[in-house]
Amino acid sequence: MSAVFEHEVAVRWRDTDALGHVNNAVFMTYLEEARDAFYTAVVGADPIYVVVRIEADFLAEIQYEDRLVTVRIEVEGLGTTSLTTRETILTAAKEVAAKARVVTVRWDQSSRKPVQFTQAERERLAAAKT
Amino acid sequence: MSAVFEHEVAVRWRDTDALGHVNNAVFMTYLEEARDAFYTAVVGADPIYVVVRIEADFLAEIQYEDRLVTVRIEVEGLGTTSLTTRETILTAAKEVAAKARVVTVRWDQSSRKPVQFTQAERERLAAAKT
Amino acid sequence: MSAVFEHEVAVRWRDTDALGHVNNAVFMTYLEEARDAFYTAVVGADPIYVVVRIEADFLAEIQYEDRLVTVRIEVEGLGTTSLTTRETILTAAKEVAAKARVVTVRWDQSSRKPVQFTQAERERLAAAKT
Amino acid sequence: MSAVFEHEVAVRWRDTDALGHVNNAVFMTYLEEARDAFYTAVVGADPIYVVVRIEADFLAEIQYEDRLVTVRIEVEGLGTTSLTTRETILTAAKEVAAKARVVTVRWDQSSRKPVQFTQAERERLAAAKT
Repeated sequence: MSAVFEHEVAVRWRDTDALGHVNNAVFMTYLEEARDAFYTAVVGADPIYVVVRIEADFLAEIQYEDRLVTVRIEVEGLGTTSLTTRETILTAAKEVAAKARVVTVRWDQSSRKPVQFTQAERERLAAAKT
Repeated sequence: MSAVFEHEVAVRWRDTDALGHVNNAVFMTYLEEARDAFYTAVVGADPIYVVVRIEADFLAEIQYEDRLVTVRIEVEGLGTTSLTTRETILTAAKEVAAKARVVTVRWDQSSRKPVQFTQAERERLAAAKT
Repeated sequence: MSAVFEHEVAVRWRDTDALGHVNNAVFMTYLEEARDAFYTAVVGADPIYVVVRIEADFLAEIQYEDRLVTVRIEVEGLGTTSLTTRETILTAAKEVAAKARVVTVRWDQSSRKPVQFTQAERERLAAAKT
Repeated sequence: MSAVFEHEVAVRWRDTDALGHVNNAVFMTYLEEARDAFYTAVVGADPIYVVVRIEADFLAEIQYEDRLVTVRIEVEGLGTTSLTTRETILTAAKEVAAKARVVTVRWDQSSRKPVQFTQAERERLAAAKT
């Protein structure tokens, strides 16, 4: 697998707000959709994880007329229970709409606590690292 | 308890869309919030239920500037597993924004199937009937 | 154009709720996405409209694992300012998740009132009628 | 006005996802609701602004059962067109669910570009600074 993973997300009318553009909270949903697709592609299934930190710069508006955005996911770092990704949203015109750095942790739903990535998951995630 | 139950829901900026008003799908969320509060008030706890039918007339726009809408819930009918409610959304100016008729069924989450209301639930719901 | 219009909508993780399935309000968003695509395909551009009535039967759950639903839009009736459509959501397994009948009206955003469909719009919509 | 502004936001069922807690993107909406209320309280009306940067640490889950979260907004810095705020979400039990630092810019909707805060706005925002 190449070091840069890309996933397309369809823009919905419901994503817009009364300023006539996609609301900032929805950018997080676009990132989440691409991150889930990344996990599925790399780890082989969508492992349960939760977001523990997000840093995001909003650089351009996304309009409903964009219809489709492209989200890039790159692995920056891998801890015992956590993964740090660089995430970029591109508009239909391939302008950078947002750049984010997101820390997620592998999550055990029964204990509601972080758990370690398995050895197989770690190897696949490490191989996806730039 | 009086036959008419009212619950206030705060309008959020995220509820609006690029037409500058609250999106029609969000009306369903306003109804849901009030219905949950109704169930909690009448049945004593929020029982698990799913929506099986909605009929809704959208009669006026809701604006972010409304800040607060009032939702009325009235019991129309009660079946073995189902409840039919008349639901009305009022704007801040007490104009009717939507009138709905909603059928919900009591739901068993483990079997993912409808279950009967308990006798105690039925009695409380019947008492709330107009 | 064939009388039955179909549009695919990607299911997002954010569409689910704590019952582990797609929330009922999101079904309205799936219908809206397909209806917008229908308008664009038939009328040639997405005309501004608002929803004035929805009747929907919820027949099956949609899960995140579906990843993609298919929405069918069929024209049932055409008025001076209004369009009535039959709208069906199919799960990934082609099970009917919801059947809806939706009345929309062509909308003038400056007066915030219904307006008549243009003659060209009416002809294209009539041609799409079953 | 005291240096710490607090605003309550009602948790909605629609805010949850299939992990049984409030989805991370919705935290942004909780922050937005409180920030809008802050702007209204301090500046006297809700000025148009857009978010340009968010840093957020997610420290605890929010459950539907919380029903109400409290969001604190504190002014950290004030630029010509931008405002930096420290934003904290507290659960019903007053546990810190998230800490964020958010940069917003005053926005001119016709040019779709940042504009300067007025002198009156700057004075009121400076007075709200810790």
